[in-house]
Amino acid sequence: MSTNTKAFGAYAGDKPLEPMQIKRRAPGDHDVQIDIQFCGVCHSDLHQVRAEWAGTLFPCVPGHEIVGKVSAVGNQVEDFAIGDLVGVGCIVDSCQHCDDCESGLENYCDSMTGTYNFPTPDEPGHTLGGYSQNIVVHERYVLRIRHPEEQLAAVAPLLCAGITTYSPLRHWKVGPGKKIGIVGIGGLGHMGIKLAHAMGAHVVAFTTSESKREDAKALGADEVVISRNEDEMAAHGKSFDLILNTVAAPHDLDAYLMLLKRDGTMTLVGAPSSPHPSPQIFNLIFKRRAIAGSMIGGIPETQEMLDFCAEHDIVADIEMIRMEEINEAYERMLKGDVKYRFVIDSATL
Amino acid sequence: MSTNTKAFGAYAGDKPLEPMQIKRRAPGDHDVQIDIQFCGVCHSDLHQVRAEWAGTLFPCVPGHEIVGKVSAVGNQVEDFAIGDLVGVGCIVDSCQHCDDCESGLENYCDSMTGTYNFPTPDEPGHTLGGYSQNIVVHERYVLRIRHPEEQLAAVAPLLCAGITTYSPLRHWKVGPGKKIGIVGIGGLGHMGIKLAHAMGAHVVAFTTSESKREDAKALGADEVVISRNEDEMAAHGKSFDLILNTVAAPHDLDAYLMLLKRDGTMTLVGAPSSPHPSPQIFNLIFKRRAIAGSMIGGIPETQEMLDFCAEHDIVADIEMIRMEEINEAYERMLKGDVKYRFVIDSATL
Repeated sequence: MSTNTKAFGAYAGDKPLEPMQIKRRAPGDHDVQIDIQFCGVCHSDLHQVRAEWAGTLFPCVPGHEIVGKVSAVGNQVEDFAIGDLVGVGCIVDSCQHCDDCESGLENYCDSMTGTYNFPTPDEPGHTLGGYSQNIVVHERYVLRIRHPEEQLAAVAPLLCAGITTYSPLRHWKVGPGKKIGIVGIGGLGHMGIKLAHAMGAHVVAFTTSESKREDAKALGADEVVISRNEDEMAAHGKSFDLILNTVAAPHDLDAYLMLLKRDGTMTLVGAPSSPHPSPQIFNLIFKRRAIAGSMIGGIPETQEMLDFCAEHDIVADIEMIRMEEINEAYERMLKGDVKYRFVIDSATL
Repeated sequence: MSTNTKAFGAYAGDKPLEPMQIKRRAPGDHDVQIDIQFCGVCHSDLHQVRAEWAGTLFPCVPGHEIVGKVSAVGNQVEDFAIGDLVGVGCIVDSCQHCDDCESGLENYCDSMTGTYNFPTPDEPGHTLGGYSQNIVVHERYVLRIRHPEEQLAAVAPLLCAGITTYSPLRHWKVGPGKKIGIVGIGGLGHMGIKLAHAMGAHVVAFTTSESKREDAKALGADEVVISRNEDEMAAHGKSFDLILNTVAAPHDLDAYLMLLKRDGTMTLVGAPSSPHPSPQIFNLIFKRRAIAGSMIGGIPETQEMLDFCAEHDIVADIEMIRMEEINEAYERMLKGDVKYRFVIDSATL
């Protein structure tokens, strides 16, 4: 039997978010019911709820950086118990049998079900996210949080911003002796700097803003380059093993490709709404460089990331907001006026 | 003491190629002097000699698919003797001490000296290529040919078209159980098909021309896709480990990116004179795909490629021309009217 739950969402792309009642399914044999305590605010939330991306289903309740406590578990659930600190990220279901799922890369499963705006048998026919009091999720997609409880709010952004940067850093083997660039110092980039630093790499942060230079160093960057300064850029030519580019706005990719050493890769984790200027193929050919993409991460590596962060005392830098401040927070996000992630206190719902 | 040598080249970008006398240096301690018997005709020759690329130095003598017999060796040369069948490809010098050179990837050395149009202490101050009777090259850049001598002409294109496709096929680990796409069936593509087939992969050739379907199968393709046919393309969605794209003309890269499986790579070996339409970053992000480039290959892997081809009885499909037919051959190349490589009979110089 489903239960009524308070949530915050929008009834149309041109409407602000407002309070609403939604339903959550009763926990099935393998389900975990979670009382949500905090939910991070991702740029994707804004794009989806404002119908800036194709296919938004209304009512839309965003939110995929969810942390809280287990409030009920299904009969077959063995790994979670009531009261456990847990998280849910961008994925709440997948086919569970394809090569991607069997490799623990549910994020690349063709049938991946996102935490909001994806088809589901539950009411109202599409998933509803973490701007809500609770959520019911199959145990496979529930993560254990080993941080101290007082850090819980700042753990929330790890579930999307954290794993989206951790996964490519691990996949492209970042560690001691490697030189890593992080382009953009926002929600994703600030996590990328912290994580790459903790992995032992030499980290260079790229930003357009002189004002972010000291901030980037405080986050763990060994060096900071103002990307508009051609001399600063040129000084790093052909030297990077990996550049993790978190900037979704269209920009000149060649300026960064030229900084990669032989066999270096620039991995993009943001997709621009209009295309980047077409990159020069010569820049790829001359040093066997690559441009790649990466999308969030799989469930096992999300757990690995959370454990890595707990071990290294890493959380996001956050600004807490009340639920009713969400529309204002979106406006501030658009101006880049947040260091570096808004997190909703779900008790204010 | 340098010697006079007959060659064929151009005095300006808008002039046809014509006979000329050039000088070759006397062999130094580590040099090998080669009597050129055949030289393949690469598209690069045409672009460079017609000054369609920046920086052509005149007089320009193209040619970097060189095969012949050793006619003299320096005092310190131990691995080559007069009469040996040898080849020279795109590289005649490099710094010999950087990380690239020490890794046997002289092709990525910042000081790589190309076989023509690169600075050299020799007269006239830039390198002159294989449209000539002989050439003097440091032993490090001389390759041994183990094919039967009667195949020598058809071995010539292996020195550029062969290694340019072999190197990325090896680097991206093509072999049994892998599905490989080869885009474009020209000088490079026809070698790519032969090599990927010999490596044991499942090979799919992509062409715009229905007329090339049977040819591609004869070259070793397991399947042929007409790239203008959307249904044929869609049938191969998300299935390729590697797509080797040999087409330099600007075209839609997304149509091929969508055919890559998770972690698949499309490697470009041709650089367009005007940019490709900018690829959709979503296509990279969704399956952690990559677009990469690759440029010729290193000297050790060029020797490995020649040995692999000798072992598998692989040569290029060629049409022999006389030296004075070169200008006409260029015109035919521009129309795609060659199967698949012109080779100059150097005896006609």
